[in-house]
Amino acid sequence: MQNIQSPTLILDEKKCRENIRIMTEKIKRQKIFFRPHFKTHQSVQIGSLFKEAGVKAITVSSVKMAEYFATQGWDDITIAFPVNLREIQKINALSEKINLELVVADPGVSTELNLLLHKPVNLWIKADTGYHRSGIPVEEVETYEKIIKEINSNSNLSLKGFLSHTGNTYNASSVKEIEGFYKDAVKKLKILKKKFESVHSNLQISLGDTPSFTIVADLSGVDEARPGNFIFFDLMQYHLGVCSLKQISVAVACPVVSKKKKEKQLIIHGGAIHFSKEFVLDNSQQKIYGRVVEMKGKTWADTGEENVLIGLSQEHGTVQLNKNQFEKTKIGDLVYILPVHSCLTANLMKGYLSLEGEKIDHMEGSFFQ
Amino acid sequence: MQNIQSPTLILDEKKCRENIRIMTEKIKRQKIFFRPHFKTHQSVQIGSLFKEAGVKAITVSSVKMAEYFATQGWDDITIAFPVNLREIQKINALSEKINLELVVADPGVSTELNLLLHKPVNLWIKADTGYHRSGIPVEEVETYEKIIKEINSNSNLSLKGFLSHTGNTYNASSVKEIEGFYKDAVKKLKILKKKFESVHSNLQISLGDTPSFTIVADLSGVDEARPGNFIFFDLMQYHLGVCSLKQISVAVACPVVSKKKKEKQLIIHGGAIHFSKEFVLDNSQQKIYGRVVEMKGKTWADTGEENVLIGLSQEHGTVQLNKNQFEKTKIGDLVYILPVHSCLTANLMKGYLSLEGEKIDHMEGSFFQ
Repeated sequence: MQNIQSPTLILDEKKCRENIRIMTEKIKRQKIFFRPHFKTHQSVQIGSLFKEAGVKAITVSSVKMAEYFATQGWDDITIAFPVNLREIQKINALSEKINLELVVADPGVSTELNLLLHKPVNLWIKADTGYHRSGIPVEEVETYEKIIKEINSNSNLSLKGFLSHTGNTYNASSVKEIEGFYKDAVKKLKILKKKFESVHSNLQISLGDTPSFTIVADLSGVDEARPGNFIFFDLMQYHLGVCSLKQISVAVACPVVSKKKKEKQLIIHGGAIHFSKEFVLDNSQQKIYGRVVEMKGKTWADTGEENVLIGLSQEHGTVQLNKNQFEKTKIGDLVYILPVHSCLTANLMKGYLSLEGEKIDHMEGSFFQ
Repeated sequence: MQNIQSPTLILDEKKCRENIRIMTEKIKRQKIFFRPHFKTHQSVQIGSLFKEAGVKAITVSSVKMAEYFATQGWDDITIAFPVNLREIQKINALSEKINLELVVADPGVSTELNLLLHKPVNLWIKADTGYHRSGIPVEEVETYEKIIKEINSNSNLSLKGFLSHTGNTYNASSVKEIEGFYKDAVKKLKILKKKFESVHSNLQISLGDTPSFTIVADLSGVDEARPGNFIFFDLMQYHLGVCSLKQISVAVACPVVSKKKKEKQLIIHGGAIHFSKEFVLDNSQQKIYGRVVEMKGKTWADTGEENVLIGLSQEHGTVQLNKNQFEKTKIGDLVYILPVHSCLTANLMKGYLSLEGEKIDHMEGSFFQ
């Protein structure tokens, strides 16, 4: 750790494993198929921790990510993103090698897809249960009818069920509300499933968001679970009440390059190109981009809510500290900061360093000194 | 262009050259030394456009970026970031090869730096003229005295002057206010310079931000100019009143993967990992992450303020269109979007495609299909 020269994403593998263990056991107990989302870590080495926990199928958010994991032995992959027909060559190449599951969200697309495919694929219909990002509103039954008809009359396509992302849980103001969003989504999807039971007897329901799958005790009604963020968690999840600070398994180590005595602030090398500009609001509506932890023994520990990252430029970060913390931090030291949105931070950092000093891959190369 | 499969950053080289020409001529006319900031484009090929315009010295924001450009023939580089002593080995390697200029913002650092350096370097003192991000407030004369004394007694260091980033211009609410911030910064730095005239007869003043250097007609009082963003401009600069939409020289091409008829929205492949989460607010305080343009002849043209990117997830974007624009856009089409903050978008995209189909480098590898 002491050899770190520039911003570096540190992974606490023990916390990671524990996060995986808890989620895997919970989902297994409830007899739900686990297809974790790998867009959070985008790492073959971190992916292998899931393999050790018995996971055999994964979710990704792009064709590129599917290619990355397919070359590393993952042979059952859902691309949980409305199919992009411009990438049909790559999709065909993937479907030759692995069990590929795709998503459609519009009538017409499956017919076109069928014509372009070389091999059969499983298809999910993207359902909108209230998040209103993408997918077909569950109330628009006639659109579902249309798409199901298309799929049934196209030999390369096999309907698997309804897939949704209950991302509205990220806007919840309480744990109770998260549970409400989840239950509501499941209820709506079960009604939809029932409507098409006479045509398809085994339609599945696939849901995936970390707040729900962490918080909701009884997950019943769902066939497949696709959460991803829980492997790292982050400040956003903590502010939602979904995880404890102790469960957050990544922190960015940043060199201190300047100190502002009067303000008790540090200037660090660590900016928007390391953390992303995602923020949470504190009690006084101030934007917070990260929270300071400090190394204690074999991992880090929180330093209190006064010690936070309050500003970000492209490469600079401004850290506000309390008196004690400010006085003990010197120029040239490293500060460790929990990110607000670990998926975006990992995507920017492009590589991890374990607490034991081992370099860990990320799909887009590795940002090391 | 029609072969694009996934989000791709398009560069209009003609607009780039024009932006460079205007800035270069303005700065030359006013007899100021031009040291453009390369953190915006981070590209050797785009950097060569500056070379063609007669630029010989550059600014970067990290040691890594200095290394990248030093290997490509740039031999006069300022790292405009408080020196990070953890990177001393790389700094020493650079100072062997090129004229390296560094920045200090704290007493004590220059003495330490002097001990670690193998070769002499020029040093700038980072001054805070009101942005309050980093640097020494111009009023704290005794701190400047302390640092200057340190520099003078250390043989590897040679004081060049005062360097500041008037980033408060980004918070200006009018063009007049930008001018006010600039004039105020220059005035303060000139007072500072006068104070140390007896010790140093040729201290320089270096300023660098795109709003000032674009807007302010009379730049006098400044010795060195370090703007960077102007080569691309972006929606943020447009909203500040600094550039026209026509001057923005980068756009992200994104495949349309779904259409939401009722809302007249498109779902595109193009999310936070392509655009960054930087936003501007429209008149009704709605967050805008980009603005839709369309290809017309050899470049793009604006489609009106109704057509904007209103939501971003990791890979998804939600585009709001007017009726006409919505009806003529099909699933599988590409939409072209002007980014809010071109520096962060370029840093995420890691490569450009020119309108002529040529691939253009970015420091961190190239994101191509």
